[in-house]
Amino acid sequence: MVSRPRGTRDFTPEVMKRRLTFEHLLDTIATSHAFSRVQTPIFESLDLFTAKSGPGVIGQLYAFNDKSDRELTLRPELTAPVMRMVAEEMRNSTKPLRLSYFGQCYRYEEFKTGRYREFFQYGAEFIGASGPFVEAEIIALALNMLHASGLIDWEVRIGHVGVLKDTLRGLGLSHEVDSSTGEPPIAGAMRLLDKGDHAGLVSLFERHQITEHAATGLFELAALSGGKETIEPARAILATMGMTHVDALDELELTLKALSMLAPEAPEVKVDLTVARGLDYYTGMVFEVIVPEMGGEGQVLGGGSYKLMHLFGLEDLDPCCGFGLGFDRVLLALEAQAERTGRSEVVPGESNQEVHLAIIPLNIDVMTVLPLIGALRARGVQVELELRGRKIGKAMGWADSIGATHTLVVGPRDLEQHTGMLKNLQSGEQNPVSLEEAAVFAQLHHH
Amino acid sequence: MVSRPRGTRDFTPEVMKRRLTFEHLLDTIATSHAFSRVQTPIFESLDLFTAKSGPGVIGQLYAFNDKSDRELTLRPELTAPVMRMVAEEMRNSTKPLRLSYFGQCYRYEEFKTGRYREFFQYGAEFIGASGPFVEAEIIALALNMLHASGLIDWEVRIGHVGVLKDTLRGLGLSHEVDSSTGEPPIAGAMRLLDKGDHAGLVSLFERHQITEHAATGLFELAALSGGKETIEPARAILATMGMTHVDALDELELTLKALSMLAPEAPEVKVDLTVARGLDYYTGMVFEVIVPEMGGEGQVLGGGSYKLMHLFGLEDLDPCCGFGLGFDRVLLALEAQAERTGRSEVVPGESNQEVHLAIIPLNIDVMTVLPLIGALRARGVQVELELRGRKIGKAMGWADSIGATHTLVVGPRDLEQHTGMLKNLQSGEQNPVSLEEAAVFAQLHHH
Repeated sequence: MVSRPRGTRDFTPEVMKRRLTFEHLLDTIATSHAFSRVQTPIFESLDLFTAKSGPGVIGQLYAFNDKSDRELTLRPELTAPVMRMVAEEMRNSTKPLRLSYFGQCYRYEEFKTGRYREFFQYGAEFIGASGPFVEAEIIALALNMLHASGLIDWEVRIGHVGVLKDTLRGLGLSHEVDSSTGEPPIAGAMRLLDKGDHAGLVSLFERHQITEHAATGLFELAALSGGKETIEPARAILATMGMTHVDALDELELTLKALSMLAPEAPEVKVDLTVARGLDYYTGMVFEVIVPEMGGEGQVLGGGSYKLMHLFGLEDLDPCCGFGLGFDRVLLALEAQAERTGRSEVVPGESNQEVHLAIIPLNIDVMTVLPLIGALRARGVQVELELRGRKIGKAMGWADSIGATHTLVVGPRDLEQHTGMLKNLQSGEQNPVSLEEAAVFAQLHHH
Repeated sequence: MVSRPRGTRDFTPEVMKRRLTFEHLLDTIATSHAFSRVQTPIFESLDLFTAKSGPGVIGQLYAFNDKSDRELTLRPELTAPVMRMVAEEMRNSTKPLRLSYFGQCYRYEEFKTGRYREFFQYGAEFIGASGPFVEAEIIALALNMLHASGLIDWEVRIGHVGVLKDTLRGLGLSHEVDSSTGEPPIAGAMRLLDKGDHAGLVSLFERHQITEHAATGLFELAALSGGKETIEPARAILATMGMTHVDALDELELTLKALSMLAPEAPEVKVDLTVARGLDYYTGMVFEVIVPEMGGEGQVLGGGSYKLMHLFGLEDLDPCCGFGLGFDRVLLALEAQAERTGRSEVVPGESNQEVHLAIIPLNIDVMTVLPLIGALRARGVQVELELRGRKIGKAMGWADSIGATHTLVVGPRDLEQHTGMLKNLQSGEQNPVSLEEAAVFAQLHHH
């Protein structure tokens, strides 16, 4: 038997209802922030990603050649495709652009819970304006989405690649590739800081003749933790390292202040100057959201300011700012939390139930109830018809198992009187009803 | 510069709004017919399609091997994936199942308007029950969707593969592959009938020693046209060919009768016994919808009764019944018709406009308006903020170009009085308003 490809998933009606509810919820929040959905193809030219994604991403691409031997790949992420689209289709649109997207991405990696080869991202990109207010708008959208989804016990960490790079450069590390490691020492140090690998950092510094004493400030910076109030001590530490005025830190302070007004209900943001994110294209503020109880799959959202538009000859639109929300991971976290806290809904609104009428014809000509079905559906009522000729007991079980809210049973004697028995499955109440559309409609919405 | 892969499309915010409106409209109709969305992966094992799709489909697959050398392919259609999913995930679900889907499919074919390499299908499958009422339910859903979309000047053709096969077998044609043509003569004849290739049919009959006289009945059958009233003459013609009782024809009659009650507003269905559809797996009723003005891209929907579940060891669920709606083609037809008839909306509801407020800070600290923005968004109002420091004239032009319904201009003197100037861009009316959230909200929804 042919089976589903490894690392992919099927979504049954129950699961899909939850996912569509979540998608619509995110759409609603994005719309209130004036972001509009766009969509790009599932595959792209391979070279869209090889130039600017990290080596980790490139090794995991689903790349293939089409019948004309073009090198294509399933998209591993959606920022680069959206940038390409803006360059091709929206050069003349009024800037800035507030774009959102939702769709599948692909990474060929070891498959386990929370890491799928086909996974879904919801994201947003702010293109053609920059600065603290733009950054605050992007972070606010991200946090308002997570808040609206009902997520609890999450942490937001914010940093600034600029602060980190300046500090590392100040220590004497270089941006040039070091032939012995294959990467620039600054990039290596950022990776180690992001992982919190103190020993690795010390040995990298030793290789570059940086004394532990000289690096003290950096370690102090990394050890800082807290909210807005962390900015001042960071400034003091940087001053001891000879950096008396760091613009990036002023910007970060302004971003945090603006954010607290635009997303007043989100948890307080933690400043963490070691956040570096994986991708090379980040240039300024970077942020991520962690749900600690989810362990290795706890990073549910990440983003920041980056430069990519120059690759398409649109330098004046850089830097942009955006984020990607791990749709599957947020759902996993919501499911775990709903179970832990006994919350009845995983996603707010998923159990909203419209009237769902199951019509059960019992030993009558089915044809006689069809006009009623057509008329009720035209009014928007969800109507299902028993089509397997089940007897009354089994038919009621069927109605229950499909999630019907009401049944309408019509037998031969009912038909003589042009009536049926309408039952509300929640209250158990039942009443005869005329088989006229208006009569059934009225009773369905009365009970 | 990296460009979009050939035959694929990007969807800008305006286009995407239309597509999302159409998707939600189809979801609403599907829900009223008690169909629920499911979703399967974008790629499948190659052998899911090689066994049962026609050779035309197989030659156009986007097939590739993954890093473990598994043979995969982007899906060319969605019926086989949904069947696979039911077999893997829904064996124990209450039957019958009413499933709907929406997503991308891929065919490597010559790219022109209406034929994309990445195209979108919305479809439905009825699994685990069969017969005229099931068929009527499926056709009714299809026709009610097209009716709700506002499509005009369309034709529905319905046929029955069983009638055609019985007739061809009666003439002496075989189901076995003919080594000189590589296909069974019956399949060849059905293809020629579907295309209306009379000369090709005559020469096929000659090759199989069937006289034109013997085939007269078949040609008469093919020439029949009209609604339900065509069934009786078809019955008479089949009788002259020695087929005195054709069950398939009785079923078709019942299906048509049930359909007229379930989709009373759809155009009358035309019986056309030469409709055979492309795919081999159809076994009974087949139907398609044509929009004649769209020429070669005029077939916007097709479906019928088919057997595929036996491939997964679930014979008792066969035959199933379903259809696929060409999402892109229906939109193309709606766009052409909106232009031709001067209709203002392409898809009903697409121009529904919520309040969209553009806030323009003029020479003031942007920070002062942020709390208002956060509060209005929390109430669901779409709020955008001018972030490029445009002067008043350009800022008003910007507000207009982003489709704002209202502007709120706040300058230094306004700020002293804690007010702003709120303008309704549709009516031109403007009034000062207190910068309190409740005051702005009330005025936005008053004007």
